[in-house]
Amino acid sequence: MAGKKTQTPGSLRVVPLGGLGEIGKNMLILETANDILVIDAGVLFPAVEMMGVDVVIPNITYLQERADKVRAILVTHGHEDHIGALPYVLRGLPVPVYAPRMAAEIVRDRLREYVRGGEGELHSIKAGDRVTFGDFEAEWFHVCHSLPDSMGIAIRTPLGPVIHTGDFKVDNDPMIGQPFDYGRVTRIAEDGALLLFSDSTYAEEEGYSGSDRSVADSLFKLIGDCRGRVFVASFASQVARIQIVIDSAAAHGRKVALAGRSMTKIARIARELGHLDVPENLLISPAEANSLPDHRVIFMVTGSQGEPSSALVRLSRNDHQEVRVKRGDTFIISASPIPGNETAVYSTENDLVRLGARVLHSKSHLVHVHGHAQREELRTLLNLTHPRYFVPVHGEYRMLKAHADLAADHGVPEENIFTLVDGDVLELSGEGGNVVDHVPAGHIYVHGLGEWDENVAVLDERRALSNDGIVTIVIPRSSATGRLAGLPKITSSGFVSREEAGQLFADTVEEIQFQLDRLGTQKLDWDQMDSTIRGTVERFLHKRTRRRPLIVPVSIEV
Amino acid sequence: MAGKKTQTPGSLRVVPLGGLGEIGKNMLILETANDILVIDAGVLFPAVEMMGVDVVIPNITYLQERADKVRAILVTHGHEDHIGALPYVLRGLPVPVYAPRMAAEIVRDRLREYVRGGEGELHSIKAGDRVTFGDFEAEWFHVCHSLPDSMGIAIRTPLGPVIHTGDFKVDNDPMIGQPFDYGRVTRIAEDGALLLFSDSTYAEEEGYSGSDRSVADSLFKLIGDCRGRVFVASFASQVARIQIVIDSAAAHGRKVALAGRSMTKIARIARELGHLDVPENLLISPAEANSLPDHRVIFMVTGSQGEPSSALVRLSRNDHQEVRVKRGDTFIISASPIPGNETAVYSTENDLVRLGARVLHSKSHLVHVHGHAQREELRTLLNLTHPRYFVPVHGEYRMLKAHADLAADHGVPEENIFTLVDGDVLELSGEGGNVVDHVPAGHIYVHGLGEWDENVAVLDERRALSNDGIVTIVIPRSSATGRLAGLPKITSSGFVSREEAGQLFADTVEEIQFQLDRLGTQKLDWDQMDSTIRGTVERFLHKRTRRRPLIVPVSIEV
Repeated sequence: MAGKKTQTPGSLRVVPLGGLGEIGKNMLILETANDILVIDAGVLFPAVEMMGVDVVIPNITYLQERADKVRAILVTHGHEDHIGALPYVLRGLPVPVYAPRMAAEIVRDRLREYVRGGEGELHSIKAGDRVTFGDFEAEWFHVCHSLPDSMGIAIRTPLGPVIHTGDFKVDNDPMIGQPFDYGRVTRIAEDGALLLFSDSTYAEEEGYSGSDRSVADSLFKLIGDCRGRVFVASFASQVARIQIVIDSAAAHGRKVALAGRSMTKIARIARELGHLDVPENLLISPAEANSLPDHRVIFMVTGSQGEPSSALVRLSRNDHQEVRVKRGDTFIISASPIPGNETAVYSTENDLVRLGARVLHSKSHLVHVHGHAQREELRTLLNLTHPRYFVPVHGEYRMLKAHADLAADHGVPEENIFTLVDGDVLELSGEGGNVVDHVPAGHIYVHGLGEWDENVAVLDERRALSNDGIVTIVIPRSSATGRLAGLPKITSSGFVSREEAGQLFADTVEEIQFQLDRLGTQKLDWDQMDSTIRGTVERFLHKRTRRRPLIVPVSIEV
Repeated sequence: MAGKKTQTPGSLRVVPLGGLGEIGKNMLILETANDILVIDAGVLFPAVEMMGVDVVIPNITYLQERADKVRAILVTHGHEDHIGALPYVLRGLPVPVYAPRMAAEIVRDRLREYVRGGEGELHSIKAGDRVTFGDFEAEWFHVCHSLPDSMGIAIRTPLGPVIHTGDFKVDNDPMIGQPFDYGRVTRIAEDGALLLFSDSTYAEEEGYSGSDRSVADSLFKLIGDCRGRVFVASFASQVARIQIVIDSAAAHGRKVALAGRSMTKIARIARELGHLDVPENLLISPAEANSLPDHRVIFMVTGSQGEPSSALVRLSRNDHQEVRVKRGDTFIISASPIPGNETAVYSTENDLVRLGARVLHSKSHLVHVHGHAQREELRTLLNLTHPRYFVPVHGEYRMLKAHADLAADHGVPEENIFTLVDGDVLELSGEGGNVVDHVPAGHIYVHGLGEWDENVAVLDERRALSNDGIVTIVIPRSSATGRLAGLPKITSSGFVSREEAGQLFADTVEEIQFQLDRLGTQKLDWDQMDSTIRGTVERFLHKRTRRRPLIVPVSIEV
């Protein structure tokens, strides 16, 4: 059973299964003796060293072993790192999902695609809705973030109100969606919140994150100054950015062509829900855009992170089906690179400049603000809620620590601040809080139809293969004598060039024969022969190449 | 022969073999009818997708085919991206090397280690030295950069003076070394330079790069505020930073322990050449440092880029032989991440914070300035030299383009500005300049004792292996019947877990037998059997796993 300790009676358990100590795969558990609520079920996008992996999802063993207690998964907003794991999680744990409308529509779409039998029990909620789940009552409230309809969740528990911010920032006049709902949060925390979970993504940055309105002003001017075609690259889900581009286009007599399947889909949902206001006949297809004069067109594209299959990257490689980059084009990269994506982004920009385009990015122009609260906004939330306990969520460890230090500066008692990481089990009672246990909460790697946890060697093997390649030695072996029944046959991949291979492997075969001869004429068992050959080849190839490929002997009896 | 066109009589050829369109492997050729001079011979550190590669070096085919004309390699300064390829280049092209003293000592050390027969003809030069090489005369002059003894080179050619800045910034009062030598540059370009090659690394950034003095002030205060141990992480070659730490240590009653082989080596050379001023008894060993009170110690370590084997990363993993990180330690990361290294740097910082340390970095504190001219400094150089022709060097394409645009704004005629990339052959004459040819100048990948150019498939194979792994099918085949003479044997690596493999491969063998049976009883040739099996296994495994491993059938005759 995941977790050795049984829950202390009367306590409230907090178990982060993802998102604490990392950016992504957000999932948090609240647990009483009777009931479990789950907040969010996100994916983490694989880092470079997670080779070949499609996505990383949380390990839900703890939940599956307590499946009868799990009342629902509550969703804060529709970003992948908060909803992306739902198709996987619901397969192993079919429970109701409650999500704000925008998120619900995105989830619905996804579940139809991925889960046999469709969407299951999926509830659309709106701000102010209250739902009771056994010992808990949840209420959603508006926050600002880069996706419309983003919410925080207040959860009344037997010990007092718990507030989870989701991803948030404080914007008093956002481009789309509602401003941050001070009033509701204040009322919920009237007598102080029991516990605050607050977004730590930008807890290291002083000041305010700024408003999308400033980006609107800047983009409006930049687009107005362009004489040729304009391309704006952003996240598919940045609906406010799409709105800004649409408004600028309308003002400057341009039409907008959306390129990229995911952007088109999000824009459709946002429009249906009234989050996106599009003048009639303003949206056109890329093909129609090609037939208009250059100064009448804006292309809005995905690929601001240098994603290989995105519209922007295909454009930069002169590999887009419908559009060719030309001198006079202006590209506005309306995003900043997420750590790890820098080289992909910069190389895309280089390619665009090489094709004759001008590239404006966030280092040179005000073309982006991010969607997460900075320190001044985090202080605002601490002020509104006066939490007794504080758990920073969503962030790498140093972000969580910076947020914890901020809360301490702000008057939350040090012993009531818990810088948890995934898998920690925190129990809160009337007297105080303690981390009492640690449960499995590592990465589950998804590749194709397979899922592996961290103990599976596949990724280690891939790393080894990627560094030095592999050499396979097929050894025909006589069952009668236990000796070679023919010449070993050597193949390799990722190790040496075809030209080098011929002589090198001929020499290797000679060396194998020489070493086997030295063992005399007694009958060899398979293991002995395999290990002699592996050692021989390893030493010989390292001497000749100073590299250490994986050596795989395969004996075959003849 | 590399390059189809013969040189236009009387012209000056410029052929960049590295560093234009990329950061690293700097190498530039100047050529007349009689003579060739080479400036720098650097390496490029492999990007993530260059799996397993140690370093990338320039392709010197063009030089080797004109070896009798090559008079010397002139070095601007001792950084790896300017000297790192010398051991490789000199093996294939044994020519004299002329380098500033600091660089020469670093090169000498390296050549002893790597080149049989030692250092060859290596000349130490100092600023103001003039050396004639056939049609050329070279003179070195002081510039500022993050390594002491960094120089630019002025080369008198039959067509007029050419100025190469090397890596440079303008600092009127550097911590160590000489200020930028305005006077010398002005005099050389008295009647205007024929051609300016200028460092473009920071050509996108407005303003001035700033002085190391400001870092000195800031580090002095930060270190003074620390009560516990202090660790400063920097590049091994940042001698000015070592000086700052030594000065701060002396002022605050601390001793300095250098950790890391490369830092110790550079510090030794810098001390011998008088670039580093160390009070007696100030430097101690890490072991001695451990016996002093915490507030008496500064460790200066390598690893500011998150390099896996560096002292900093080993400390962050609790894996350092002599020193353990503890609560109260302060780490100052006195560098900023080079693009591509961000995730490694951030993950190191996270690990340090998790161990209880405080981490100060360039985003939060003034702990670093870089060593390259920004736009205001680049303008200064254009002003000093009034070049007739301009070629931006050292940088990715968008940096080169930004620098070219800056030169145009500054009055260099557009038709005299050449945004070249590696391999372009520029010919300058009395009348003007033209790019007349393009010669091989791609990456040469070094791994162990092997060197491959871009046409070799090894890296493609590694990428494929890293994504999906490999499946090898050994097929015992009867030479008499041309059919299976036993069960195929399947092994895999980086594809599925050991647990999945058993059933999956048993099913695969069955499928192979089924498909071979369908072919009837006629004798199969080897190719036919191989391709049937490859196709069968590919389809079958994709259906079962939605992954595409490399499929390697190996037939063995029995």
